[in-house]
Amino acid sequence: MAEPGRLERLERRVRELQEELAREKRGRAAARARIHTMSAEVTDSNPYSRLMALKRMGIVKDYEKIRTFTVAVVGVGGIGSVTAEMLTRCGIGKLLLFDYDKVELANMNRLFFQPHQAGLSKVQAAEHTLRDINPDVQFEVHNYNITTLDNFEHFMDRISNGALEEGKPVDLVLSCVDNFEARMAINTACNELGQIWMESGVSENAVSGHIQLIIPGESACFACAPPLVVAANIDEKTLKREGVCAASLPTTMGVVAGMLVQNVLKYLLNFGTVSYYLGYNAMQDFFPTMSMKPNPQCSDHNCRKQQENYKKKEAARPKEEVIEKEEEIVHEDNDWGIELVSEISEDELKAASGPVPELPEGISVAYTIPDTDENLITGETVAESEESLEELMAKMRNM
Amino acid sequence: MAEPGRLERLERRVRELQEELAREKRGRAAARARIHTMSAEVTDSNPYSRLMALKRMGIVKDYEKIRTFTVAVVGVGGIGSVTAEMLTRCGIGKLLLFDYDKVELANMNRLFFQPHQAGLSKVQAAEHTLRDINPDVQFEVHNYNITTLDNFEHFMDRISNGALEEGKPVDLVLSCVDNFEARMAINTACNELGQIWMESGVSENAVSGHIQLIIPGESACFACAPPLVVAANIDEKTLKREGVCAASLPTTMGVVAGMLVQNVLKYLLNFGTVSYYLGYNAMQDFFPTMSMKPNPQCSDHNCRKQQENYKKKEAARPKEEVIEKEEEIVHEDNDWGIELVSEISEDELKAASGPVPELPEGISVAYTIPDTDENLITGETVAESEESLEELMAKMRNM
Repeated sequence: MAEPGRLERLERRVRELQEELAREKRGRAAARARIHTMSAEVTDSNPYSRLMALKRMGIVKDYEKIRTFTVAVVGVGGIGSVTAEMLTRCGIGKLLLFDYDKVELANMNRLFFQPHQAGLSKVQAAEHTLRDINPDVQFEVHNYNITTLDNFEHFMDRISNGALEEGKPVDLVLSCVDNFEARMAINTACNELGQIWMESGVSENAVSGHIQLIIPGESACFACAPPLVVAANIDEKTLKREGVCAASLPTTMGVVAGMLVQNVLKYLLNFGTVSYYLGYNAMQDFFPTMSMKPNPQCSDHNCRKQQENYKKKEAARPKEEVIEKEEEIVHEDNDWGIELVSEISEDELKAASGPVPELPEGISVAYTIPDTDENLITGETVAESEESLEELMAKMRNM
Repeated sequence: MAEPGRLERLERRVRELQEELAREKRGRAAARARIHTMSAEVTDSNPYSRLMALKRMGIVKDYEKIRTFTVAVVGVGGIGSVTAEMLTRCGIGKLLLFDYDKVELANMNRLFFQPHQAGLSKVQAAEHTLRDINPDVQFEVHNYNITTLDNFEHFMDRISNGALEEGKPVDLVLSCVDNFEARMAINTACNELGQIWMESGVSENAVSGHIQLIIPGESACFACAPPLVVAANIDEKTLKREGVCAASLPTTMGVVAGMLVQNVLKYLLNFGTVSYYLGYNAMQDFFPTMSMKPNPQCSDHNCRKQQENYKKKEAARPKEEVIEKEEEIVHEDNDWGIELVSEISEDELKAASGPVPELPEGISVAYTIPDTDENLITGETVAESEESLEELMAKMRNM
């Protein structure tokens, strides 16, 4: 019945297809086994040799310690995905990823995601790529919006218990979200938990960004004062509406993710100066730094509680341990002839509506509040006024 | 002879395997067709919507023009690969990639390459990934070392003729190499061709880097003066030798690649201020800028020729066209209380051997020359001394 040799040809074809498929799959799978101990050995096959070299260079004392840390990345978009990739390549112990978006072709102007991932959830696509890059890292991904009530509770629980050793809190939370509600949710969670976190953002016109370290009780939280931004001069008519999207650039996102993860490495591995605030103005290549104390009248009662705790801790601290703080030097003059240029003039800043805190040139608040409060930093915050909040939210959506 | 149903089972197995293979291959192939006209339409499927939004934001007048440019990236390592990816995602017209290295697992601590690419040539692996990311970009890759005589001639030819329109020169050459010989080869080629280029580099201890714009005849070339670096204080004992490698970090590489491509976009698309020199000191989050005039006694006669051409062009230029240059402001005082901190003190700088040019705090030359020359910037350069060159090369290999 069957033509002669048909069986043999089919058997051969099955073998060929199996081999080709195995080759295809091998091409995508992680090409290396897990590595149980980080080594400084200089061989082509050691993915950690260039990182362990930081010890010989005198930059980091104990690089291997990176494997003991857990970092939560909230928002796996233009900044968050690159942030997660950098931490993965650095050999972080565990990453928690939170996002509820899907990959779209419209995201292809930023690094990390690839067109064939369009339609997948961002956390799922990211986990797949990151596991291939470094199978030594542990991943825990959550495909949900942290701002809904149930999810927020779960988010709080995972921040409190999701470290490498289940039941212990994560070491750091990184905010890489693109909207006001999500930033406020992270701020609320971290104030309640006393969780140290870093915030990041890029302006809607794609040419400025910033990172900020928030130590509850020690530095200003997101409810203490409006978030600071590098002045971007966005025209009101460009604000987000139907059929209009924010601009973004892989360059600005890459620089901000690099500044963020550099700050994370400095904080976790204890080298260099950890920045409280670092801005990036791409138009003039201007990078302002500063720090801001918390607001004793902050609307978030957990922030006020953390401030009390911090004061007690500081008072109990032996004097010789007091380290020179960054804010003690940021307001000195610069005698070295380096020119820093701002997009907005001092007059423009003064002409802005509402009270404006003392800020270095080129840094501005993301919004100003048209109320009678004398000092925005120490005054009542906006969360207590319904109307202001709406206005703020509209403006913050465009950050 | 054959067991019953064996033929049918084999046929079904072949169909299953073919489908699985097609799925695997589809997963890796470019998931989108070519796009012939960049559109600003805001849809999930438009990979250019966020870039075209730069026009509505008032940042870039004519974003589509990016498709007319050709950029050559020399060195596809930690900086070059990310640089190529950023340009690809931005929709550059054509990329020329030059490298002769293979991907190794030891490269996995930087962005871009993945473990399954280990063993492939860097240009081949990069081209494959970049084509998947953006099939609208044209690629031309050369898997060779540009410093050998034959290859150098071919490199010169491709720089002169490799634009989108064959026979026209590329718009920009980007140096992303990691050694002195390759930098000198690019410098020689660009001086001879009058080709504008940008240089980039990261220090051996992974915590500082820089980018530099070189316009032959207008700004200092690589032979005019030693390259500037952000002071890194590398101990001599850490220099490269058998069994020892340079440290590197995805963060520093990402920031430098971002600064480089941002400068490229500003230069090509005519927005913001193009930086002549931008440094990055990761330890203190310090980003010095400056610019340097060419050396009238430069050892490269093509540089001196370009200087003459530039002078003639400037003299012939109508006065109203003269644009305020960056160097006219970089030496003014900063009155805004922003503190810039350097790793090296002025005393340390003065105590360094050899003459030192006037540089902003925190920027240093990559080496100083123990000769009797009064002014390094305007004096004879090191390329004319055999012994100095060797010394320089040893030091430059560690950049």
